[in-house]
Amino acid sequence: MQGNAYILGMVGLGTMGRNLLLNMADHGFKVAGYDKDATKVELLGKEAVQGDVKGFTSLTDFIQNLQRPRAVMLLVPAGKIVDSAIADLAPLLDKGDLIIDGGNSHFSDTNRRAEELKAKGLHFFGMGVSGGEEGARKGPSMMPGGDPQAYKVVQPIFEAIAAKVKGEPCVTYIGPGSAGHFVKMVHNGIEYALMQLIAETYEVMQKGIGLSGEEIHATFKKWNAGRLQSFLIEITRDIFAFREPGVDHLLLEDIKDEARSKGTGKWTSQVAMDLQLPIPTIDTAVAMRDLSKYKTMRVAASRVYKDPKRNEAHIQKSLTALEEALYFSTVIAYAQGMHLLSQASKEFGYALQMEKIALIWRGGCIIRSTFLEDIYQAYKKNNALEHLLLDAGIAKKVNGATAGMRSVVSSAAAAGIAAPAYAASLSYFDTFRSARMPSNLIQAQRDYFGAHTYERNGKEGVFHTQWFKK
Amino acid sequence: MQGNAYILGMVGLGTMGRNLLLNMADHGFKVAGYDKDATKVELLGKEAVQGDVKGFTSLTDFIQNLQRPRAVMLLVPAGKIVDSAIADLAPLLDKGDLIIDGGNSHFSDTNRRAEELKAKGLHFFGMGVSGGEEGARKGPSMMPGGDPQAYKVVQPIFEAIAAKVKGEPCVTYIGPGSAGHFVKMVHNGIEYALMQLIAETYEVMQKGIGLSGEEIHATFKKWNAGRLQSFLIEITRDIFAFREPGVDHLLLEDIKDEARSKGTGKWTSQVAMDLQLPIPTIDTAVAMRDLSKYKTMRVAASRVYKDPKRNEAHIQKSLTALEEALYFSTVIAYAQGMHLLSQASKEFGYALQMEKIALIWRGGCIIRSTFLEDIYQAYKKNNALEHLLLDAGIAKKVNGATAGMRSVVSSAAAAGIAAPAYAASLSYFDTFRSARMPSNLIQAQRDYFGAHTYERNGKEGVFHTQWFKK
Repeated sequence: MQGNAYILGMVGLGTMGRNLLLNMADHGFKVAGYDKDATKVELLGKEAVQGDVKGFTSLTDFIQNLQRPRAVMLLVPAGKIVDSAIADLAPLLDKGDLIIDGGNSHFSDTNRRAEELKAKGLHFFGMGVSGGEEGARKGPSMMPGGDPQAYKVVQPIFEAIAAKVKGEPCVTYIGPGSAGHFVKMVHNGIEYALMQLIAETYEVMQKGIGLSGEEIHATFKKWNAGRLQSFLIEITRDIFAFREPGVDHLLLEDIKDEARSKGTGKWTSQVAMDLQLPIPTIDTAVAMRDLSKYKTMRVAASRVYKDPKRNEAHIQKSLTALEEALYFSTVIAYAQGMHLLSQASKEFGYALQMEKIALIWRGGCIIRSTFLEDIYQAYKKNNALEHLLLDAGIAKKVNGATAGMRSVVSSAAAAGIAAPAYAASLSYFDTFRSARMPSNLIQAQRDYFGAHTYERNGKEGVFHTQWFKK
Repeated sequence: MQGNAYILGMVGLGTMGRNLLLNMADHGFKVAGYDKDATKVELLGKEAVQGDVKGFTSLTDFIQNLQRPRAVMLLVPAGKIVDSAIADLAPLLDKGDLIIDGGNSHFSDTNRRAEELKAKGLHFFGMGVSGGEEGARKGPSMMPGGDPQAYKVVQPIFEAIAAKVKGEPCVTYIGPGSAGHFVKMVHNGIEYALMQLIAETYEVMQKGIGLSGEEIHATFKKWNAGRLQSFLIEITRDIFAFREPGVDHLLLEDIKDEARSKGTGKWTSQVAMDLQLPIPTIDTAVAMRDLSKYKTMRVAASRVYKDPKRNEAHIQKSLTALEEALYFSTVIAYAQGMHLLSQASKEFGYALQMEKIALIWRGGCIIRSTFLEDIYQAYKKNNALEHLLLDAGIAKKVNGATAGMRSVVSSAAAAGIAAPAYAASLSYFDTFRSARMPSNLIQAQRDYFGAHTYERNGKEGVFHTQWFKK
């Protein structure tokens, strides 16, 4: 039996699960899949034109055919479905077996599940998988976290199927407990910010500069050949060239402007607030997805609040400035996310190696970009770097892009063009570089009305003042 | 016994608890206080120069001396201390007695406690109390939520001690369950935003316009006599005139620029994200409190990133424009908070009467202001108003302040003056008034890389496109 057994089993044969299995099979691994939905098992069979892949509709058969210690990966929707899949699996497994949750579970759920399974003698991994459908099939970026001993069993499989950059696989052991899911969550938070920034760039191109769809396509194409090169710019370029057969306008124009979300961006913002770590560009991206859903309200408001009178001479129409602005704010978005990772690493004991995270994000994942090479180099030089903007190489590039950033944000505010994530990135930067903030006033106010006390420059202790006359 | 009994008992004799008791005694109510700390009980005795107030250090004695059904109010720090106070109290109480939590508890804790106490036959109220020390003593704004029957017992006391505006007390029954604590939390969220906006106004006055402390004082004094009149502007005016005896500069200048927070602002942002309701001005205020704490990092960054070259001619130096900007963004901050309340009312079944909330915020609380009269009138006219900015009267005022707002935000961005909450308010506004947002691009991207599907204008259903060539 053991000789014919499957080296890894996948529970959940949706597109992601099937594609990962096919990817493993391509690399010579004998793998099995389980889904209670027979049509998905059939689909797996049809798609598996090469390699050794078998689908099961019986969970017991599936488990019995796995090599020991077993490695069972879940690719099912985050939430209660993960718990119910684990509840079904656990009684069929033996001590030392490994369950890997490859979905976007909240890291606090991952901590809980790891504890529960540890009590049963089972290993548990929370693993972020990024790259979408195509990445899963051809090479994703993967962020596994959990017991380092257990990782060794699956390491060869994951290293084989991962995307490669300069010969290095885009997977590495991230850290203990929920480290893998946490890092994937922040990856998605950065992704929210980058997508919002690109959407605002489209807004400025349309409403500010007056570019046509073709000109926008050409601009993203050009930018994708420069320092802005990234997966998201690349697909944006494609989207601005995509027409349905027989239709004379972009498909994009027919798509509703109500953006959905599944929660990882929101989680990133919420936990950053718990850690008291500011990531306002990501927060803004989350808020703007939410605002997009209030379509009826926005239409009503558009009738009440008109565009300001435009002074064309004052509107920034330079694509060079806009490229600088997008570059600048892209750096800010990554920097906020990396800062959050550094802080979480201390708070949660993840002992993250920032350099390795940058390394595995360079390929396979949704936020892969040329700039990730800069991030990788910055942390390679100094793995304890507190904030990306404090790296000398990055500072030089940011300083060089600041003039364009300022002119775009300033001009958009004057012209009534909505650029919230741009504005948040610039105001974060200007606050970040403030040796002295006006927050002393907030402390004075808090002490005034609530006796919350304050601290003083150059004096130890806390102080309270009777500000008002009784 | 009953004849001599106390009508209300306060657990926790810190400044807020003592001041509320003294306020009740002033209005002829015979009240009792309990604290295990004898020095606080003594303080209560010393301060109670009139009225019928008695302090206890024995919880049993305290409870036995209360009139039945008993009304016991807690003013202890939010969190586990509330649970432990309730655990001590509950065994000593009888069915039908009422516990009121007057602290800033998280509304989810209030829901849980109400359920637990209901099972024991006890009533529970979560009540927000705003106004700080002075408000507690002279007339706070109070937001009680819970069982409407139980409210009748304490209603006369609260109506007597509350602040009054145009003869109406600043207290009303808010709604069932955690409605009171939820409304107080959002009050605090708005407070965070207003404080941040005033701090940024100080920043623009200092670094942009170059005003002295005295000129800033004079400006806030003038503004406090106009449409910006509010408690927070009033205390800001005072702070810009406050010098310690024998010291030649403002005390404010000696206060550290690291603002603390206790959680209610963060909670507001976090639950707004759960409800998918955008409140970016409040989110930004929370993020900036957090950024203020990274002092060492900010000092390091200030050496790397210099101010842009200033073109004095392009810097907005008009105080008229700045007043418009502060007015504009103040309206936005309130509007976001009220929008959150409307949405929470539906989600949590609070059945909030928006008009009454505006009414009781007009006096006593930290965010009281002349503008709250406008809010009150808007909801009085239409209690189902979806968003404050859609009220015709408010729209007129906002439209009139837009030019100043745009010039201040645009100029600050160009000059490198950090005005994050201003920027967030304007970009929220410009997005809010966008009949069409660029979020269709985000939907296209999500469908491209993750097959998340999208919706189309004028066609039912969800769609998926094979954007890339396999």
